[in-house]
Order: sequence, then C-alpha cells, then structure tokens
Amino acid sequence: MNFNTKIDKYRELVNIELNNIYKDGPNIIREPINHILRGGKRFRPILCMLTSSCFNGDKNSSIIIGTAIELLHNFSLIHDDIMDDDNVRHGYETIHSKWNKPIAILSGDAVLALALLKLNNLEKYKMEIIKEFNKTLIKICEGQALDIEFEKKRSISMKEYINMIDKKTGYMIGFCALSGSIISNLSVESQMLLKEYGKLLGRAFQIQDDLLEVISCEDKMGKSLESDFVLNKKTFLSVKGRIFDSRYIDKCIQKSKEDFKTGYSLYKEFLINHNIIDETKITIKKILLESNKLLDKLNMENNTLYKYTELILNRRY
Amino acid sequence: MNFNTKIDKYRELVNIELNNIYKDGPNIIREPINHILRGGKRFRPILCMLTSSCFNGDKNSSIIIGTAIELLHNFSLIHDDIMDDDNVRHGYETIHSKWNKPIAILSGDAVLALALLKLNNLEKYKMEIIKEFNKTLIKICEGQALDIEFEKKRSISMKEYINMIDKKTGYMIGFCALSGSIISNLSVESQMLLKEYGKLLGRAFQIQDDLLEVISCEDKMGKSLESDFVLNKKTFLSVKGRIFDSRYIDKCIQKSKEDFKTGYSLYKEFLINHNIIDETKITIKKILLESNKLLDKLNMENNTLYKYTELILNRRY
Repeated sequence: MNFNTKIDKYRELVNIELNNIYKDGPNIIREPINHILRGGKRFRPILCMLTSSCFNGDKNSSIIIGTAIELLHNFSLIHDDIMDDDNVRHGYETIHSKWNKPIAILSGDAVLALALLKLNNLEKYKMEIIKEFNKTLIKICEGQALDIEFEKKRSISMKEYINMIDKKTGYMIGFCALSGSIISNLSVESQMLLKEYGKLLGRAFQIQDDLLEVISCEDKMGKSLESDFVLNKKTFLSVKGRIFDSRYIDKCIQKSKEDFKTGYSLYKEFLINHNIIDETKITIKKILLESNKLLDKLNMENNTLYKYTELILNRRY
Repeated sequence: MNFNTKIDKYRELVNIELNNIYKDGPNIIREPINHILRGGKRFRPILCMLTSSCFNGDKNSSIIIGTAIELLHNFSLIHDDIMDDDNVRHGYETIHSKWNKPIAILSGDAVLALALLKLNNLEKYKMEIIKEFNKTLIKICEGQALDIEFEKKRSISMKEYINMIDKKTGYMIGFCALSGSIISNLSVESQMLLKEYGKLLGRAFQIQDDLLEVISCEDKMGKSLESDFVLNKKTFLSVKGRIFDSRYIDKCIQKSKEDFKTGYSLYKEFLINHNIIDETKITIKKILLESNKLLDKLNMENNTLYKYTELILNRRY
C-alpha cells in the first residue's frame, strides 16, 4: 500500500471510531461533542498508527491509542477555544460559540473522559500507555498555562517560547510516536528516539502554525487569528520580531485594537522586511531535518516515517 | 483508635498529600490550584480509607486513591462553579471569581491531570482502580450535563432527579467505597455491596445538601444558593414542591429575580406548609438505613462504616 493510501485508510479508521464514540449520554453534551469531532486532519493518530505499523506493533492497539490521542487533542482544543475566545475550529463553529461556555467546558471534560475510557480497552502495554498519556495531559495544561501567562508579558525569550510550544504541542506528538513504539515492544532507547522525533515534529508543526497564520488566508487555517494577535499571543515570528524592534510590534498591536486590518498589515510588512518569514521557513526545515536524523539511528525497513515528516513539511493548512 | 481520632488522622494524611501535590508548574495555575485545595471536609477520601482499613487493605494505596478522589472532586467543583457562577466554595473565593474563567478552566483540567498522575503511583490493583476511576469521571460529567439540561425544563420527575444526583454525586462516593474494597481484595459480590452502599450515601448526601441549603444560613454551606434558585436548579425539595403546586414555585422564582429574599422566603414558607422539609429529612434517614442494610450483609469485625453513615446523617454543613 502506498503512503497516501495508507494514511487515508488510517484516517478513515479513526473517523469510524470517533463517529461511534458517544452515541448515548445527555443531549446537551452529546450533540456538541459529535459536532466538534467531525473536523480535523487526524495527523496525531496517524503518526501513532504509522509508527506502530513500521515496527509491527498491534494494529488494534494503535487504533485504540490513536482514537484516545485525537480525543485528548480535541479536549484541549475545546477548552483552549473558550479561553482564547476563538469562534471557528477546523471549519466548524466552536462549541462555546454555537452553544455556550458551560456546555463547552463540560463537553471538553467529557471528551477527555472518553479518551481515558478508550484506553481501558487496551489489552497489552496498558499501564505504560496510560502513564505516558497522563504525563502528556499535564504537559498540555502547563503549555496552555504558559501561553496565557505569556500574554501578560510584553516579550519572552525564544527559549521560553520553545518550552511553551513543546508543552502545548510537542509532548503530545511525541506521545504519538512513543506510544506506537511501546506497543511495538521496541527497546527503551528506540522509544526515546521516537518520542524525541515526535516532539521535534510537534515543535516544527507549531512554528508552522504560527507561519501559516501569517501567510495563509484566515479561512484556510480555520481559526481566528484576530483575537490571538490583539491579545499579544506569542508566536515564533513575534518573538523573533521583538528581537529587532519590540516597540514597533507594540504599535502594531495597539493599532490593531482600533483597526485590525491596518495594524496586522503593518506587522506583516515588518516581518517581510526583516526577513522573518524566510527565516521561519528555514527554522522549520532545520527542525524537521533534525527529527529525521533521529530516525536515521533506527533500523527501519521502509521510509514511512520520513514520508510523514515530509507530509508535515509540505502542509499548507 | 476511636472513630473521630481515626477520621481526623485520615483527613490530615490527605491534607499532607494535597499540600504537596503541585509545588512546581506555571504560577498562573499553581496558585489557584493550591488556593482551592485548602478547603473541604475530605469526606470522600476518608470513606475510601475507612473501607480499606475495615478490610485490611493496603494503607498506602488507600492514601493514593483517596488523594486522587479528592482531586477528582475538586476538578468537578472548579468547573461546576464556573458553569453555575458560584463565587464561594468551602469558605474560599472560587477560582474563576478570584482570578478568571480561563484560569479556572485550566486549573480544573490540571487538577484532573494530577489525580490521574497520582494513580500512576499505585502498585497493586492499578488497572481495576483506573478503570473504575474513569467510569466515575464520565458519570460526573453526565450528571452535571443533566443538571444543566434540567435547568431548561420547568419540572422533572423524581426518577430523573435521582438519576441526575446519582451521576453527579452517587457514583463518586460509590467509587470511594468500591476502591477501598478493591485494594482489600474483597470478593466481587462484596465490592458491589460496598459500591452500592457508597452510592446510596452519595444520594443521601446530595439530598442533604439540598436540604441544608434551605435550612442553614448561607455562610455555613459556603456556597451561593441565590444563583441556583434563580436558575431553577432542580433540588429534591423543589421537585417535591412542584408535585403540589408547580405554578407557585414558578412564581417564587420569578419574584426572586427581582427581589431574592422575598421570593426565597415565599418558597421556604411553602416547603414548610407542605411538610416538605420534614419529608426530606425522613427520606434521607430512609436512604441511610437502606445503605446500612447493605453493610449488614458483609461480615465486618467493627462498626466503623456504620459510624461513617451516622457521620453523614448528622452533618450540619
């Protein structure tokens, strides 16, 4: 099976699981949960399933874990979207916007509960998977906490930024590759390599998100960038920008509060003039190159995971 | 050791665990988490520890599970208080009130993560405990969902009310007794009896909460009853009241929106005139008697759990 057919099949398998994950339960949360689970690229479960398939892990376990990961991801999106007051996610209206905040809080909680219940179905390596899942969960919370904490700061260092996105995104994608390797019974050394591989992918993924937010049109990203910018949310590009001229970035944000388009255009112009867009692209490539170097250390029979790296590199939304 | 000394000791053990549960991590969630964990009677962990001690379960495991239960309980309180917009909990200002909603959502999430991480420390019966913990979590979410769903309904049946409080409170207290019995390696039959015992205690506990809200002064309950009443939150007493005269209850709620004291006084008067306060007291006693009958079926060497039932019966806040 070629790579694209394979990931389409994996996506389909996860979608089937998600379509059946919450058929009963109170209407008030069942409807929003099923609404929000329709969207998404399923990048995370696919990585878990690809890793498992690369090393002959149990396929059924990889579907279970993949589904739990996608639920974990959605739990964090539902709650983050309330906190950041984003109204669109994956092309669909967010829960707190379509319904209200209490329903969104509760739906997020229930989605996390569904993820945990899903892991109950594992037969082998259950303890290890649950342990790593829980460690990932607290990292996600802490990453989001830092993200909010940083809003209040005028500027942060690149090191602080990387630490924040690793927690917010890196560890979860690290867990995707790690869990795939655990159920394939790989050595601890190989597990750590794959975990780190995923973590770097996640880092590149998040920086790419920051980049795409600036260079794509809003519709394609499917989330509102306006609120993020006005709130002085830190991105790879804004952190780099502030190294050149922090006061100018302040001005752009200030301007955007009265007139978003003008303020944001000034900011974009600044990023182009200071070569920050191109530098960001180079950084993403460098990180993905680094992640592939970790794969080189593993004896793999095929190039599936390298193709996955490429998939991330080439994504346009 | 006499009963009171024992529960004081157990409470102290859980408090020590909770005091040390989250020393690092981002300020933005560390402070609110440590703020909210200071309050509470620790009824739930105490039941788990008492059950375990009754049947010679491993003490250390019971402390771990007890701590996780108290964290689970606090997770649900933090989020419920946002949804219901309650400003005081256990005599302390709630997180969303003292800080803000995003911080409260995130702190709740992190507290649940801490509960799950705590369970990772179990050595024996880990799988069973985690499985039951996760089942409890989804019930709590569904109970709260029903609670919100019922706000929109003018009236609900007593069966619907009991189903809602069982999910919101009963299953969690059922889990306290159940988990204590699992780590004591009791037979499945005894485990089920204890689970049911706890569930009934929880049911009585919740009805008692409804009752105390009406008969105590607000300070003692440490939570705001005003918002609950205005929102037409269903309670055992209001469900019973509506059997007599649903339109009158509507009128009291309507009145309370302009003038809370008057509207609520009319409601209280109505409950007294229709004997609903006394009937509620009788119901609580009946349920607790029923729960004790389940204990009778177990061969226990001491009367500790009966004393716990009594403790619940006699609580005044």
